[in-house]
Amino acid sequence: MKAEAKDVEQLNELLEKRMLSGLWKIPAGDRPLDPKTDVKAHLWKWNEVYDSLLEARDRIGIHAAVNERRAIRLVNPGLAHTEMTTHTMLFAFQLIQPGEVAPAHRHTMAAIRFILKGNGAYTAVDGEKISMGEGDLILTPQWSWHEHAHEGADPMVWLDGLDVPLVKALNVISFQPYPGKSGLATKSYNPGVHFGLTRPVAAESEQARAPLHYRWEETYRSLKLLAESSGNPYDAVALEHINPINGGATLPTLSCWMQMLRPGERTKAHRHTSTSLYHVFRGRGTTVINGEAFDWETGDSFVAPLWSWHEHANRSQTEEALLFSMHDKPVLDAFGLYREEGNGKSHLGL
Amino acid sequence: MKAEAKDVEQLNELLEKRMLSGLWKIPAGDRPLDPKTDVKAHLWKWNEVYDSLLEARDRIGIHAAVNERRAIRLVNPGLAHTEMTTHTMLFAFQLIQPGEVAPAHRHTMAAIRFILKGNGAYTAVDGEKISMGEGDLILTPQWSWHEHAHEGADPMVWLDGLDVPLVKALNVISFQPYPGKSGLATKSYNPGVHFGLTRPVAAESEQARAPLHYRWEETYRSLKLLAESSGNPYDAVALEHINPINGGATLPTLSCWMQMLRPGERTKAHRHTSTSLYHVFRGRGTTVINGEAFDWETGDSFVAPLWSWHEHANRSQTEEALLFSMHDKPVLDAFGLYREEGNGKSHLGL
Amino acid sequence: MKAEAKDVEQLNELLEKRMLSGLWKIPAGDRPLDPKTDVKAHLWKWNEVYDSLLEARDRIGIHAAVNERRAIRLVNPGLAHTEMTTHTMLFAFQLIQPGEVAPAHRHTMAAIRFILKGNGAYTAVDGEKISMGEGDLILTPQWSWHEHAHEGADPMVWLDGLDVPLVKALNVISFQPYPGKSGLATKSYNPGVHFGLTRPVAAESEQARAPLHYRWEETYRSLKLLAESSGNPYDAVALEHINPINGGATLPTLSCWMQMLRPGERTKAHRHTSTSLYHVFRGRGTTVINGEAFDWETGDSFVAPLWSWHEHANRSQTEEALLFSMHDKPVLDAFGLYREEGNGKSHLGL
Amino acid sequence: MKAEAKDVEQLNELLEKRMLSGLWKIPAGDRPLDPKTDVKAHLWKWNEVYDSLLEARDRIGIHAAVNERRAIRLVNPGLAHTEMTTHTMLFAFQLIQPGEVAPAHRHTMAAIRFILKGNGAYTAVDGEKISMGEGDLILTPQWSWHEHAHEGADPMVWLDGLDVPLVKALNVISFQPYPGKSGLATKSYNPGVHFGLTRPVAAESEQARAPLHYRWEETYRSLKLLAESSGNPYDAVALEHINPINGGATLPTLSCWMQMLRPGERTKAHRHTSTSLYHVFRGRGTTVINGEAFDWETGDSFVAPLWSWHEHANRSQTEEALLFSMHDKPVLDAFGLYREEGNGKSHLGL
Repeated sequence: MKAEAKDVEQLNELLEKRMLSGLWKIPAGDRPLDPKTDVKAHLWKWNEVYDSLLEARDRIGIHAAVNERRAIRLVNPGLAHTEMTTHTMLFAFQLIQPGEVAPAHRHTMAAIRFILKGNGAYTAVDGEKISMGEGDLILTPQWSWHEHAHEGADPMVWLDGLDVPLVKALNVISFQPYPGKSGLATKSYNPGVHFGLTRPVAAESEQARAPLHYRWEETYRSLKLLAESSGNPYDAVALEHINPINGGATLPTLSCWMQMLRPGERTKAHRHTSTSLYHVFRGRGTTVINGEAFDWETGDSFVAPLWSWHEHANRSQTEEALLFSMHDKPVLDAFGLYREEGNGKSHLGL
Repeated sequence: MKAEAKDVEQLNELLEKRMLSGLWKIPAGDRPLDPKTDVKAHLWKWNEVYDSLLEARDRIGIHAAVNERRAIRLVNPGLAHTEMTTHTMLFAFQLIQPGEVAPAHRHTMAAIRFILKGNGAYTAVDGEKISMGEGDLILTPQWSWHEHAHEGADPMVWLDGLDVPLVKALNVISFQPYPGKSGLATKSYNPGVHFGLTRPVAAESEQARAPLHYRWEETYRSLKLLAESSGNPYDAVALEHINPINGGATLPTLSCWMQMLRPGERTKAHRHTSTSLYHVFRGRGTTVINGEAFDWETGDSFVAPLWSWHEHANRSQTEEALLFSMHDKPVLDAFGLYREEGNGKSHLGL
Repeated sequence: MKAEAKDVEQLNELLEKRMLSGLWKIPAGDRPLDPKTDVKAHLWKWNEVYDSLLEARDRIGIHAAVNERRAIRLVNPGLAHTEMTTHTMLFAFQLIQPGEVAPAHRHTMAAIRFILKGNGAYTAVDGEKISMGEGDLILTPQWSWHEHAHEGADPMVWLDGLDVPLVKALNVISFQPYPGKSGLATKSYNPGVHFGLTRPVAAESEQARAPLHYRWEETYRSLKLLAESSGNPYDAVALEHINPINGGATLPTLSCWMQMLRPGERTKAHRHTSTSLYHVFRGRGTTVINGEAFDWETGDSFVAPLWSWHEHANRSQTEEALLFSMHDKPVLDAFGLYREEGNGKSHLGL
Repeated sequence: MKAEAKDVEQLNELLEKRMLSGLWKIPAGDRPLDPKTDVKAHLWKWNEVYDSLLEARDRIGIHAAVNERRAIRLVNPGLAHTEMTTHTMLFAFQLIQPGEVAPAHRHTMAAIRFILKGNGAYTAVDGEKISMGEGDLILTPQWSWHEHAHEGADPMVWLDGLDVPLVKALNVISFQPYPGKSGLATKSYNPGVHFGLTRPVAAESEQARAPLHYRWEETYRSLKLLAESSGNPYDAVALEHINPINGGATLPTLSCWMQMLRPGERTKAHRHTSTSLYHVFRGRGTTVINGEAFDWETGDSFVAPLWSWHEHANRSQTEEALLFSMHDKPVLDAFGLYREEGNGKSHLGL
């Protein structure tokens, strides 16, 4: 017995020198029935995030930042070594001062902005100027040139959502500063790319284009309409921002939602193999994640890791609560790896 | 020579008896370079259509109609023997009196309603009650149960669009009266199926559903927005009503548009292998089809046959003109048979 | 009562002058539950077809034929006025003499050739020379240039299958003789476009291409393999020739099959909304269509109209029977209009 | 200046406590124009791999292995801490003795087997017994039950390919031993699922199924055919094993190829954002990866990391060289992240 163990150890050493490794070394724990993740449920308080942004405003010139963005990202306690928010996604908060320009660049990472505070700034995407309003969602798809500039009077704050950890895991991060000198914005955004349930009839040479701008006014109007009619036991009143060109998710790697918990509303618990990042746009409530309660209010952010049971409640009996969220579900869907369990009913069958 | 001709004639006779036929009999004219159609450009005046509807109201009880619809269809002068509006599509006008019910049935033909006049009526589709407002577009996809009923005070008029001739050409018309006794409408329409650029997040068991109701208020708002930004040289300001589930046309066989000609606007001529049926919702203008001018005003209908050069002009310098239209382009697209030529530039290469 | 009928008749006349027509005129029979067709079940005997081809060979020079094809088509008894084989498809037989060339043209109709007899001829498709072997299936997709030429010693006979009636119903027949003088065949067919379950890895600039040539040797080998393992209660051992680029049917409008009835095999009856044209490649058997028995043997052709119950039997206890067939199922599928019933079990729900 | 630096450092510390991190901390090197990877080009010699397998055979009972597989994986020198072959894929070699059974389990990782040596063993996938022949490729799609058993006389060796690191990066590894006692193989594999360019016509209730078994005899026959006609400047004569149901890659996350370098053949260099794992099935040659030459012969394995320039040469003037390879290209394609450069021509534009 002992001799045998020694045998195996010698074999392991021999293999190691040959850049080989025996499967017999794999601990049984690496073969779990349930998915395992280092991502931890966590909540970031708005006063800490916002105070940090104000400190950064005073100490970090926008051109001092390597990336020329004055942004602060959320670091998951389980991923401190990588400084990412989850294993696939990143949330960051960005503050821009009147007159500042975060100059143009492009990268293989896809990004979204969800506008939190202020007006007068714009994002230019491939030359088109998109004005930023509170509650708006603005997309910068992978490899599109984009810059941010502020022509208004007060500081502007928004949330950045990116698929950095995924693109990093695939080892295909490419980043390029804009070679041109002057600003990127040369024309106004063509809102004509898509209107609700209709689509402009294009001349033969034109290509259908996915939208880059989802205005809050539209989103909120739709959310109110949905709230009147129905809901979903696990997600209450939730809308996904879609790509109407192909009926797909917001972006190939990311899905964005705006969600309402009606006054006093409480959802049932479910769990899924996608991970969810939440930002509280308005209201206050509690989310229970794997038995731990996270109380949140306007401005807070939190993460529900994959395969964690989670349920939401609006703690107010009079005000609605509004959650913006970002999900890596499209990534799981791409490979048939999305799985969901709810309500005691398991759907393990992939 | 003569002997030979006689030989061929004898051969033709022999073949005919055998239920065979030689390709040599086909006239060269049956092998044209340009597509040929019996569909003729034609315009139907509203006063004649509406007067006919009023006459029908007085003379035809709704239950006298075999089909229990008091509807009048447009007959293309080139298709008088079939009484169809084009070779693939049908336009009809329907009038319903307060208190009347056009009882439920279903058929393999897909249909749309575009509401022209009145309020208080509804269409029930598979049990959901959809209220009809002026300018609204309501779909009854193939084989869905549907009925119309009028709870309002004044006569209601709408336009029916169907793919009857196509389904007939495919020999797959199926029609079924609703077996139930009572009304079909058991619940209100769930407008939550789709909202602009967002989609309700469904519980796992639910299916994404294409919309059945395109409200005028939404359509017109989008049209105004598009009119501000841009247009299309051949179609001016035109919106297609889409199926946001798959990014496809309004229905698998039909595409519906709402189109604006701005005051004084005039388009360039083009032609395509799809056929277009127009109804003037508002305004007055002229459409030139293969050199023939058709002057139109509110309520008129006209057809631009496939491969006919056509261009539109708004004759008013102050009022916009609004055209509703229906196209069989999805049918051509399904087989790669859509072809378009414009602006002197030919795209013959399929 | 009488007065009323007169009223309606007057109204009908009034409408007719206005190019309008009331729906109340439609006979109830035009609204059947079951699809109706004028296509009749029919069988054409090979000795009559072949004798006709020989007569045509002697009397019709290939250049005398308008279309420069010495072909004879099957005329459905229910469609004598149109001289088509079904409402969507056409079967014709073509004979070409050694040294003859059926010169190049192209058309919006898609065509297939199924080779019956002889060797030494080829079809050139967009410049590629495809040699014709007995049992081979060769495609000429819509708008591809194609010619046939015979470099062998004995007459060559094949079956042409086309979607002429469908393209005619859509009014988009375009036909063009090849403008060039010399032959079309400039290179040999690249069989490398697709190999079974593998696909050549293309350089970045190349496009994946659907196959044009399905060799009998491959088809028959697969058929034998399938015959060993399993079958289908309604179609026995049947293979569909597919487009492996997209997993779709043989062509966008046509599906081709090779089917084996093992010695003594007999199928169950079913019916569907697609129509099937059969050609007996080898063997003898009986097909019962809506209760009528059609006995067939090598060279015969027959049609099973849509929605007709049909079942096949191999009358030999020792020899296999091989049926080539062509179906318009892709057309029905394109619009969700395919429906099937079998074995007493109805699947009416579309 | 100094004071400022201190300011920033204090800010960084403050943020760290709050689980936040400033973007200004990111080193510029983390934002490269060209993708970066830790995966290193490396070659594993067959004699070392095979000797290790023999040692394992003698020292590791199949039931001693946690996973009940006697397998040895290739460890990339750049990924020693994870013991993976690349950042997305794993290659391992497995030896099974006559009479042994590697019992059934299933997992969310997809796997392929490429059979190297021996006969008499089988893989059972969801109950179907697939016999393993040299050069065969056998798939076990994610979450399918599979076991291996050896009914032959001599040791059997094969190559395992999996997407373990990808599924691990997505944190969705699930693994389940088969609960049943007896063997999994209850019926023979139905080769009828797909035959080359044809597909069995299914009864209505049956689903089309992707193939699980690609026989060497078929693959090699196709490769020879392709070798006669044409090639690809970068990959010589290469076939991808496809999923003919949807025209897609071998599996949603993996693409497998069989590639021939004809005697003396030498390819041009290119690079792409997918990573390639090669196993030399037959022959000897040299692959130059980013300027470093790797000489290989039958049984060796090597990796070409993403974005590395690589070119292949067959060192024999008389014998063909055959390379089996596995690629993560479907993963990059899923998100639009595949990019390729060849021949001095850059295609950076994503």
